[in-house]
Amino acid sequence: MPIDTAENGTADLAKAGEFLQLLRDGRPRTRAELAQVTGMARSTVASRVDTLLQLGYVAPVGDSTSTGGRPPSLFALNPDARVVIGADLGASHARAVLANLAGEVKAEFWEMLPIADGPEAVVGWLAQTIGRLLAEAGCTASELAAIGVGLPGPVEFQTGRPVSPPIMPGWDGYDLPARLHQDYDVPVLVDNDVNIMALGEHKANLPTDQDILFVKVATGIGAGIIAGGNLERGAQGTAGDLGHVRVPGGPETLCTCGNVGCLEAVASGPAIALKLGLTPKPGQNIPSLVAQQVRDGDAAAIAAVRQAGRDLGSVLATCVSLLNPSVIVVGGSLAQVGEHLLAGIREVVYQRSLPLATKHLRIITSSSGSHAGVLGAVALASEFALSPKAIEMPIG
Amino acid sequence: MPIDTAENGTADLAKAGEFLQLLRDGRPRTRAELAQVTGMARSTVASRVDTLLQLGYVAPVGDSTSTGGRPPSLFALNPDARVVIGADLGASHARAVLANLAGEVKAEFWEMLPIADGPEAVVGWLAQTIGRLLAEAGCTASELAAIGVGLPGPVEFQTGRPVSPPIMPGWDGYDLPARLHQDYDVPVLVDNDVNIMALGEHKANLPTDQDILFVKVATGIGAGIIAGGNLERGAQGTAGDLGHVRVPGGPETLCTCGNVGCLEAVASGPAIALKLGLTPKPGQNIPSLVAQQVRDGDAAAIAAVRQAGRDLGSVLATCVSLLNPSVIVVGGSLAQVGEHLLAGIREVVYQRSLPLATKHLRIITSSSGSHAGVLGAVALASEFALSPKAIEMPIG
Repeated sequence: MPIDTAENGTADLAKAGEFLQLLRDGRPRTRAELAQVTGMARSTVASRVDTLLQLGYVAPVGDSTSTGGRPPSLFALNPDARVVIGADLGASHARAVLANLAGEVKAEFWEMLPIADGPEAVVGWLAQTIGRLLAEAGCTASELAAIGVGLPGPVEFQTGRPVSPPIMPGWDGYDLPARLHQDYDVPVLVDNDVNIMALGEHKANLPTDQDILFVKVATGIGAGIIAGGNLERGAQGTAGDLGHVRVPGGPETLCTCGNVGCLEAVASGPAIALKLGLTPKPGQNIPSLVAQQVRDGDAAAIAAVRQAGRDLGSVLATCVSLLNPSVIVVGGSLAQVGEHLLAGIREVVYQRSLPLATKHLRIITSSSGSHAGVLGAVALASEFALSPKAIEMPIG
Repeated sequence: MPIDTAENGTADLAKAGEFLQLLRDGRPRTRAELAQVTGMARSTVASRVDTLLQLGYVAPVGDSTSTGGRPPSLFALNPDARVVIGADLGASHARAVLANLAGEVKAEFWEMLPIADGPEAVVGWLAQTIGRLLAEAGCTASELAAIGVGLPGPVEFQTGRPVSPPIMPGWDGYDLPARLHQDYDVPVLVDNDVNIMALGEHKANLPTDQDILFVKVATGIGAGIIAGGNLERGAQGTAGDLGHVRVPGGPETLCTCGNVGCLEAVASGPAIALKLGLTPKPGQNIPSLVAQQVRDGDAAAIAAVRQAGRDLGSVLATCVSLLNPSVIVVGGSLAQVGEHLLAGIREVVYQRSLPLATKHLRIITSSSGSHAGVLGAVALASEFALSPKAIEMPIG
């Protein structure tokens, strides 16, 4: 009776995956331990360890304590076996880093580069920058295992294509992986920018929190959801798209989307700047302009940011009731105004959410700041690079 | 070097789990197939199949097509090897069923029984009813593998204890598993009633949908979330607690919780009855009374239910933007009014949510109706009964 392909896929996954998943904690193990833990035959374990040794993913680390007879060899994951690229292509800037499999950043470039310049210009920059990052880190293209990319709009994760992105003219349905494959024959993973920021914050700063709501407040407003330890993308990949949610108890301000009272129309950087009568100079970042006014001690700016925090809090109170996260992380350029935005958020969340859901809830600013995105893109790429699927299908 | 316990736990899970997880699809397999798919040694497979045969979880089902030589035996999961109990303890009624491991219901009892009678009365009823269900189905207590229970309030899933439940006087922190263990020495899994309804709907009617929002509208209002195929409980188990979320654009009605504009204060059965001036007779179910008025064609009742739908829709539009489900299932006694409630929900959800998130969104009423809860409790119990953890630790 033939085994169907789907089941073979699952089997491959189960087979090769367990070793690397076990070894990712950094603790060295013997072949006997691997056999005992996985329940696999010793001969299977030996052959798989050999494959991983040949590929360089695993390295011997001296010998374990003898248990009588010849001491068995110890093996550990080799984080420098391969490198990955993490890129965060934002509305107005682009940032890319090269990191090893443990997520340690080895090289970095960033540039002011509007996403509205279109996919050929922006992805062309990325392809060139990957070459510069490899050169900077003294690596060859053969050492590259995967590329993770964040985009400021909805992305169909399975294909890596943007889907009707509102602020990315010319990008709808663009095959970003295919363009990068012209230069680099490695897996390319593309996701929404707020999703990768949530992932970056989870991996870099909050590894023990399994339920995280990451909120980006800048030119736009969006959220990334970690639930039960997993990044949740939803049925079409639009989960977390909070910008046009109606603010409970908020003003009926007309939004660019045609509806009234949307979160972005009352609490985004441009909405606050409009309220304050601030006019940015060409090329000046509006949320940063607002943040600067607050740092300068402008009372009207402080009051406006605090009210934006309350309006955000009104929506986040609903999110807290719905998702019961252990932590809300506020990121994006408006988060740089510090406690004023957070104070407004806290005020309403603690007033409107169930006591049981807020008893242990922390509301904090992002620790990774402008690097949350690239760190998440690195996590996306290195997780895939270490997944059984990637190992079973040799790279290059 | 000793292997730590946590890792041994994982190993047990990996070892015994794969067979039953593979066999749960109902397709018979040979020992050789199991070895090939799991990557385990044939001797390991043979010994594990023997264990499962002895426990009765697996049964031979004739021989496969010969591939030359002696034809290998085929094995399949035996759904009648054990039975499970699923119980739904509601605000005013209690329902319990006995089902086999495939979720087929063999016996059922239900009764009007207020949860406010307290834990001793209600769980005493359940313990007795389990005995009656076993007798009815012609089973002995030794055939019972697990018990799943739903409660109308927040539950700490790990311990099975209610946490500050608002409509369950005397239940706070009650150790329901310990009480049932006096009579039945099997695993007891306790969860919030709306969570098990979401699980029941997913398993029984929507197995291919991975992102489901189940909304119960009755005396109270709550939601159960399936995201990426998993039931999400949140950090403290209160995920989906939508009753006291503020309705965007809704009236500032004072709620019993002390806040204004809560969803339950404007769209629950009692809120609609209050608006209509309906006075229930003692023991009469308020949401059912409203539903009856609607079925009788009362224009004021129809308008009130439709408006409740709009207010629900206003909150659900936010949930759709946040979670991007493929389907919203509306259950609970008010869902029995049919299209009027749904029409109101659809009206606002399609107006307020992102086009991308609603393009393929279905909004439907529960197909399982009053049985969604017990079917979910059965799923909870049988999933646990078939999990490696339960099999590795023989029951009783």
